[in-house]
Amino acid sequence: MKAAVFYGSEKGLRIEDVPIPKINPNQILVKVAACGVCHTDLHYIEHGVPTFKKPPLVLGHEASGVVEEVGAEVRTLTKGQRVLIPAVLTCGKCMFCRMGRENICANMTMLGNHIDGAYAEYVAVPAKDLLELPASIPLEEASIIADATSTPYHAVKNRARVQPGDTVVIFGCGGVGINAVQLATAAGGYVIAVDINERKLEWATQFGAAKTINAAKVDRVSKEVKKLTGGGADVCLEVIGNPRTIEEAFECVRVGGRLCVVGYTSEAVSIVAGKIMFKEIEIVGSLGCRPLDYAPLIRMVEQGKIDIKRQVTHRFKLEELTKAFEVMKEGVSLRSIVIP
Amino acid sequence: MKAAVFYGSEKGLRIEDVPIPKINPNQILVKVAACGVCHTDLHYIEHGVPTFKKPPLVLGHEASGVVEEVGAEVRTLTKGQRVLIPAVLTCGKCMFCRMGRENICANMTMLGNHIDGAYAEYVAVPAKDLLELPASIPLEEASIIADATSTPYHAVKNRARVQPGDTVVIFGCGGVGINAVQLATAAGGYVIAVDINERKLEWATQFGAAKTINAAKVDRVSKEVKKLTGGGADVCLEVIGNPRTIEEAFECVRVGGRLCVVGYTSEAVSIVAGKIMFKEIEIVGSLGCRPLDYAPLIRMVEQGKIDIKRQVTHRFKLEELTKAFEVMKEGVSLRSIVIP
Amino acid sequence: MKAAVFYGSEKGLRIEDVPIPKINPNQILVKVAACGVCHTDLHYIEHGVPTFKKPPLVLGHEASGVVEEVGAEVRTLTKGQRVLIPAVLTCGKCMFCRMGRENICANMTMLGNHIDGAYAEYVAVPAKDLLELPASIPLEEASIIADATSTPYHAVKNRARVQPGDTVVIFGCGGVGINAVQLATAAGGYVIAVDINERKLEWATQFGAAKTINAAKVDRVSKEVKKLTGGGADVCLEVIGNPRTIEEAFECVRVGGRLCVVGYTSEAVSIVAGKIMFKEIEIVGSLGCRPLDYAPLIRMVEQGKIDIKRQVTHRFKLEELTKAFEVMKEGVSLRSIVIP
Amino acid sequence: MKAAVFYGSEKGLRIEDVPIPKINPNQILVKVAACGVCHTDLHYIEHGVPTFKKPPLVLGHEASGVVEEVGAEVRTLTKGQRVLIPAVLTCGKCMFCRMGRENICANMTMLGNHIDGAYAEYVAVPAKDLLELPASIPLEEASIIADATSTPYHAVKNRARVQPGDTVVIFGCGGVGINAVQLATAAGGYVIAVDINERKLEWATQFGAAKTINAAKVDRVSKEVKKLTGGGADVCLEVIGNPRTIEEAFECVRVGGRLCVVGYTSEAVSIVAGKIMFKEIEIVGSLGCRPLDYAPLIRMVEQGKIDIKRQVTHRFKLEELTKAFEVMKEGVSLRSIVIP
Repeated sequence: MKAAVFYGSEKGLRIEDVPIPKINPNQILVKVAACGVCHTDLHYIEHGVPTFKKPPLVLGHEASGVVEEVGAEVRTLTKGQRVLIPAVLTCGKCMFCRMGRENICANMTMLGNHIDGAYAEYVAVPAKDLLELPASIPLEEASIIADATSTPYHAVKNRARVQPGDTVVIFGCGGVGINAVQLATAAGGYVIAVDINERKLEWATQFGAAKTINAAKVDRVSKEVKKLTGGGADVCLEVIGNPRTIEEAFECVRVGGRLCVVGYTSEAVSIVAGKIMFKEIEIVGSLGCRPLDYAPLIRMVEQGKIDIKRQVTHRFKLEELTKAFEVMKEGVSLRSIVIP
Repeated sequence: MKAAVFYGSEKGLRIEDVPIPKINPNQILVKVAACGVCHTDLHYIEHGVPTFKKPPLVLGHEASGVVEEVGAEVRTLTKGQRVLIPAVLTCGKCMFCRMGRENICANMTMLGNHIDGAYAEYVAVPAKDLLELPASIPLEEASIIADATSTPYHAVKNRARVQPGDTVVIFGCGGVGINAVQLATAAGGYVIAVDINERKLEWATQFGAAKTINAAKVDRVSKEVKKLTGGGADVCLEVIGNPRTIEEAFECVRVGGRLCVVGYTSEAVSIVAGKIMFKEIEIVGSLGCRPLDYAPLIRMVEQGKIDIKRQVTHRFKLEELTKAFEVMKEGVSLRSIVIP
Repeated sequence: MKAAVFYGSEKGLRIEDVPIPKINPNQILVKVAACGVCHTDLHYIEHGVPTFKKPPLVLGHEASGVVEEVGAEVRTLTKGQRVLIPAVLTCGKCMFCRMGRENICANMTMLGNHIDGAYAEYVAVPAKDLLELPASIPLEEASIIADATSTPYHAVKNRARVQPGDTVVIFGCGGVGINAVQLATAAGGYVIAVDINERKLEWATQFGAAKTINAAKVDRVSKEVKKLTGGGADVCLEVIGNPRTIEEAFECVRVGGRLCVVGYTSEAVSIVAGKIMFKEIEIVGSLGCRPLDYAPLIRMVEQGKIDIKRQVTHRFKLEELTKAFEVMKEGVSLRSIVIP
Repeated sequence: MKAAVFYGSEKGLRIEDVPIPKINPNQILVKVAACGVCHTDLHYIEHGVPTFKKPPLVLGHEASGVVEEVGAEVRTLTKGQRVLIPAVLTCGKCMFCRMGRENICANMTMLGNHIDGAYAEYVAVPAKDLLELPASIPLEEASIIADATSTPYHAVKNRARVQPGDTVVIFGCGGVGINAVQLATAAGGYVIAVDINERKLEWATQFGAAKTINAAKVDRVSKEVKKLTGGGADVCLEVIGNPRTIEEAFECVRVGGRLCVVGYTSEAVSIVAGKIMFKEIEIVGSLGCRPLDYAPLIRMVEQGKIDIKRQVTHRFKLEELTKAFEVMKEGVSLRSIVIP
């Protein structure tokens, strides 16, 4: 089968022919329908972020497809069913899985990182983590639920804990951020979207933001937020992973409010400890999404509360993957998918 | 001024001329713009439910208006401002107020029950509880926020704790129930509305219900709910106050789910204790709404997430109050308001 | 090996010789050190409550022991280690397991009910659910952690959610109830223990109760509780499974408080719905204990916060099992264990 | 009356004769029995931290006493009753008070900071905030409940949310820290106490710590904590206000755990944002204590779960206040009280 194989940050990515994966009795072979293009892939390729499985490695972790073959012990799905493949698979046995926090599983396995991913015609995954997709959800676009939509769903619901009527500031309106905007809105929030790219702010408005702030055009975002909210937002989410933005997001939180860090950065943030204490602010991290949360999220997509179709602004063939990354870097795409 | 004065369940209600109330230094005199017509009033008039202040008593507890005069010590509002009057006023000092549960204040004061209400041209209320209404919200229709909308807001957000993607069954689609439908939808819920009146079920669909069940046309509502949800709903709300309906609502809750009792009944429900225990179900009551919750709720109305205009299906002059009650009893109105 | 085999409620229990169980690759064979004697066993034997596995069935679900043999794929434990066997084993894959509520697992397996239990010299159990016991905890007495202690731990911590300083009323001071007293005290609660047996009330005092009420000697328990607490308790737990007691416990809860139903009964309780609503009371069920909770609970036993030694008032040989049940019925034992 | 009047950080403190305060109709005049000596006072005197009321100002915010005179409208207390005076008084009307978070009241008033305090023979305070002390609690020692005990009670219960069986690391075992140790223990926690002073670590052991770590004698505290807890603590509390200690405390938190910042510092902490995100850690601030929480805390003192008597290691006359500060700086006292 065709696959995009990563050979390390020096040698890069090659589209080549590899054997179709074999499945064990508890796995399913999925014929990939589409796989979303994510900044995470770029981090491996361009920034030398190491993958857990040493290259060569098939990248791609945001995929949907059709069941091609089921393992001998699988009873939950059958050939021909349309499925979503969560980006991260869990062990189900560690303390974190058992406390209902599978997303921080001590033994998590990420497609296109710990194991071969879905920039390929076929991918092998454990049956227990696959989700059936209702007929009304378009199969190819559904791929982006697996990460771009599910990551902010977990963040908005379980970590930022947005309540109906809350004022919510979202920093970053890219592929994940725009879903944070959409989900916080669908949860009843009054969303203020922040970015430095006007196109992204327009998208934010289309996806439900009540207000937008172009951070490049104001003195301090926190000043604007305080004006709009009367003293600070109930909840802020940073979906970029920029230390300076996280610090500014902290300043936007009202007394007794909450900052949720969704974007990743290996750098330090510098925050006055006395403000955390004196204003009783909460800072919470958010990582990925629990398998459990896919069912209600799919229900929201099905009901039209979350729009996935409009998000997919670009489509590429697997052979055009490099071009897809270029488009992503230019910031002109909202979400691109690759069709093997 | 004109007012609808209640003389006890035997003598009933009379529209008559009474003196304009005097205010103390911490009160505000509000010129009433509109007052919603509620089943609670009918309970006093027809079912002999006693009021806390002995008749004669001006009824009416769901009102909006314009500040006419402010007490000497009031600094928060000035003459001419448009305001919402919460149905229930709180002491701010008891244990419940201090724990953030003002809605169960040990010394609560309800308009048209403990003190004279708003079926009148003017009403006197403490300044601390009044809320300014944004210009974009129509003043007369805003009256219904004070109870019909705020009661289910508290129920959905704080007691039923609906999360985005939850399956939610709402029993009763009258004035309060329809707002429960609307609010649970705005909180991201997948709402199944239940009633025995087709007109109300149509309203429920218009206000966001994903599915409806006519309880008069099915064998068991719980059977239908289990079919639609795959085993039971995450959350059920009973907004009628019928013991048999509460019992059926309990049967609709999934293992580990939650039943929220919003409707009032003085009768007992009969529930198998072993089901509460073995299925780890939660049953929670919900009463009124905290003053604190009005600001985010008004924000939701302002942003169009909650529609108040379409709810007001009937308008009456104060003199026509009796007719308004007739219409409510016939079940043809969604919400009626009275204009003094 | 010797085992107590149950042949159905008519034929009863026989101590006889049966083959030592065979283990699969993920199981462990445990040499039983002791197994607690529980009312649940009596329900099968005397009250005809059906077991999930049809008799013949080895009863007993509250056991500790030593690893005798490990399955081929087990890496977590080795021969000779001292272990606790949770009463209920979980699937780790259903929605409830994944949401951190393994105790209501859709596929739960109870020792001595769904599968052969521990009134035997050996028992076979899945490796994933076994817990290592620290050297400082006596092995035989540790058996009672598996149910009598863990069930109220879950109830007190996760369901009743007792906070330091809370007033807590516990109805029933038998084997499980006395642990509820002890655990609520260790969680910082001010415990009022209720029973009709003076001996049990004395035990309650020894295990930390601040006050006791003999329900047989007062007019209404709720009156006494209101006197002691100034209006009602923050939290009540019913650990008996008597519908009338559950109803009385409900009356003891303060406005805005919580009732936790731990005792099982197949009968209905009758509760005025308006009180649930108007007083915003919560009623929550509690079932068993999550495997996850055993580690902190064992830590509490190790640190001496929970006393297991004093609880074991009687010890029997496996052959004396019938006598152990007699003693339990007389109400003179706190907890009995059987040594195979 | 005699009082310790602060004249600003340059001129310092003078014991002098000032008029007894006059009370308004809602206030109570309390004859001070004792007032605790706190590092906060030293921050005004030595480090130039400004007070809200400009000097001259009577300092002292941790006091107990006897009702001397009640205002005309006070109905809750009468002359001669023994009372505790919370350190911080609240408005009862702002958003924070109404959401049950009076401790972050937008208009909070602190004794010995915003208004004259209790290093004096008499102090005037609003009746609504005073708490009656049970006869069994010694009056003078009770003073320290007002801050040294209540601040960590709020932190442990409401912010760190310690659960029975949790592993809890407490950084700093001074006057407030030792109460954090004691309260986390009383809440069922397994406490590891950290300090650089052996005497304080001995106190920590006496007040319930299961383990102690002398930070001056180990390479990294986080290494030791990870060893003792198997990977990190469930909850950490920093009660010092040292940025480096807060950073180290962060490193001690397990994946999915919580850091509670109780100590104040105006300096910044530097934390790798990716760790907050990837490990889904929560950082929460904690400030003072809600008036509401005094009742259950007093219940814990009354029941002997919290020991106040042993904490008061030194007593001084009001005239010896400067000496009391010296002793505190030397670190040889646990808590000193001043008797006017």
